[in-house]
Amino acid sequence: MKVIILGADGYLGWPLSLRLLRRGHQVVGVDNLATRRAVEEVGSDSALPIPSPKERERAARELGEFKFVFGDVTDYKFVRELLRKENPDAVVHFAEQRSAPYSMRDVEHAVYTMHNNLEGTLNLIYAVKEVKSDIHIVKMGTMGEYGTPNFDIPESAFVEVEINGRRDRIPTPKFAGSWYHWTKVYDTYNMLFANKVWGLTFTDIMQGPVYGTRTEEITGERFFTRFDFDEVWGTVVNRYCVEAVLGLPLTPYGKGGQTRGFLSLEDSVEALRILIENPPKQGEYRHVNQFVELRSVREIATFVQEAARELGLDVKVEHVPNPRVEAEEHYYNPELKVLPSLGFRPKKVMREEVKVMIKDLLPFKERMARYSSAVMPRTRWK
Amino acid sequence: MKVIILGADGYLGWPLSLRLLRRGHQVVGVDNLATRRAVEEVGSDSALPIPSPKERERAARELGEFKFVFGDVTDYKFVRELLRKENPDAVVHFAEQRSAPYSMRDVEHAVYTMHNNLEGTLNLIYAVKEVKSDIHIVKMGTMGEYGTPNFDIPESAFVEVEINGRRDRIPTPKFAGSWYHWTKVYDTYNMLFANKVWGLTFTDIMQGPVYGTRTEEITGERFFTRFDFDEVWGTVVNRYCVEAVLGLPLTPYGKGGQTRGFLSLEDSVEALRILIENPPKQGEYRHVNQFVELRSVREIATFVQEAARELGLDVKVEHVPNPRVEAEEHYYNPELKVLPSLGFRPKKVMREEVKVMIKDLLPFKERMARYSSAVMPRTRWK
Repeated sequence: MKVIILGADGYLGWPLSLRLLRRGHQVVGVDNLATRRAVEEVGSDSALPIPSPKERERAARELGEFKFVFGDVTDYKFVRELLRKENPDAVVHFAEQRSAPYSMRDVEHAVYTMHNNLEGTLNLIYAVKEVKSDIHIVKMGTMGEYGTPNFDIPESAFVEVEINGRRDRIPTPKFAGSWYHWTKVYDTYNMLFANKVWGLTFTDIMQGPVYGTRTEEITGERFFTRFDFDEVWGTVVNRYCVEAVLGLPLTPYGKGGQTRGFLSLEDSVEALRILIENPPKQGEYRHVNQFVELRSVREIATFVQEAARELGLDVKVEHVPNPRVEAEEHYYNPELKVLPSLGFRPKKVMREEVKVMIKDLLPFKERMARYSSAVMPRTRWK
Repeated sequence: MKVIILGADGYLGWPLSLRLLRRGHQVVGVDNLATRRAVEEVGSDSALPIPSPKERERAARELGEFKFVFGDVTDYKFVRELLRKENPDAVVHFAEQRSAPYSMRDVEHAVYTMHNNLEGTLNLIYAVKEVKSDIHIVKMGTMGEYGTPNFDIPESAFVEVEINGRRDRIPTPKFAGSWYHWTKVYDTYNMLFANKVWGLTFTDIMQGPVYGTRTEEITGERFFTRFDFDEVWGTVVNRYCVEAVLGLPLTPYGKGGQTRGFLSLEDSVEALRILIENPPKQGEYRHVNQFVELRSVREIATFVQEAARELGLDVKVEHVPNPRVEAEEHYYNPELKVLPSLGFRPKKVMREEVKVMIKDLLPFKERMARYSSAVMPRTRWK
């Protein structure tokens, strides 16, 4: 199979490229390196050193047929010509601004996030429609599209409801918690509309936060994927692991009852591999919830604290005022059936994996220490 | 009261400016003249000749304190400085690309519509938050945000539903039928989020299609508002009236059972006046359905045909293949309570008003005839 990965230089894009190559697929990796620049912008860097795109291309070719293309998905002609030239079976779209705090910094970042994310997806929709309408579009969304509703989150694009005594099928209700999360909601609606009008084929993935330093293919530094830990780019588990290594307290926001569906990098990459190798029917819109464990951030702090203790690191847990506007205690019960039905079986549990992560991060303590001031929350919603 | 109208050169913006002036309010009218250019772009023009912004400023000053400012709401600094300088009580936001077919022309128009509409509203949100957070934001949305659901459309931003046995309050379900309509949905969600996080005060208006040539203030040519009739910019009632004047058949799309909530220009302007003069409480998000008569396009064709006949014009009704993807027969029952509760009483009925419109348009038949080739549908969804 030939797969284009938009955002191939990112945390998921790079290890997914390696996984697909090892499975014998051809991979064209596309990136404009926006995340590298945007992490610098907030005064931080990846905890693990990552090779340049050229070096990555060389490393990836140890595993299979890989090509790196520098390009921006907000350039329609670039996207269209890429599809014309490469004629892929699937396009995986990770090329979005992926940080909630980054989108909440100010109006400029809010507008950039809206433009960048919506335009990239619209360009991909039109390019597929124009060039080859049977390409499978695999789009990274987020479980954050749902917010934290009081109902069991259905794993489907539409749901039957009764409103004032009459029944209808409505798009599964969403309520996001940042401009970033809203862009993912809007992408979903734009894709549902493109599916309705033009019959394009989508897998829309509502993924929970991913943690981890490793996949099976990450066997040495040349295969490292980026690992962000600052308050803007680092997600909660990864940030806590770095806090532990740096001897900083672990910092749940507010009460810490915020519960999400987490999964390891290895499990994320494997789930994506399965979704790509098992496409939906032509013209189908497949809506997937992608996570492994439901955990509160309070619980995660305990896991990381225990893991650190086993490794001889003594760390405290210190709740800090919540910089976000979000429910700190809530119901959370998302459905999970599509991935299991396709044979997905998770391999990692968070409690164990955080030990591996801390061990992987320890040799880079000095490197991370340079950016330790970027760990505590500064970006406030209010 | 001091009111800024963004999009004051438009079909609604101009007569609303006149109405507010006549009521003794100060009005600052802002426009970048995008609609004038975009109508030219599709090879058409307003059926009624409209004065230049300078001439309009002069005419408006006969009624009260008016100023025209040339500017673009996608320029954040412009919006912020405008609010700083003018210190308004309310900002009415009409400055969006308002045509569904225009947004469906191609990827360039889709992306322009998304960018222009979402960015303008985001800029206004941030400027109000930065400059003076108690400004009443009056935002023009569309009944088209709802699509044509099988339930009675509630006149509220949220609705209680039961999903798989558990109850929750969800944003009122929406499903739009064009990129343009989706931008209005996304604006609504962005404003709901800004209301939740920052407590900004909104009136979000779900308005049905407006028809008409007149308001009480339009007493001569210098007060004319634009009147579009081509397939891209002309809405259905207005387009049929021009077809009647030009001796063309009236052209319902498909079966013609498409039903919407219509209102006359006079009633729209008066409803807006009431919403501005009766703002919601500080920090409230007021969600309004704004329409007068539920009519199918098939029925409207009959009204226009009868009106034309009374005026001695013999016109045919010829259903044409539907260029859009939409239900041609459907349930439609939107709630209407906010405007009546504020004292709104409609003055016009469509059946009568279309006669006035045809009479008003007849003197400009030659002018319209130059653009008659732009009337029939060319922009197709598929």
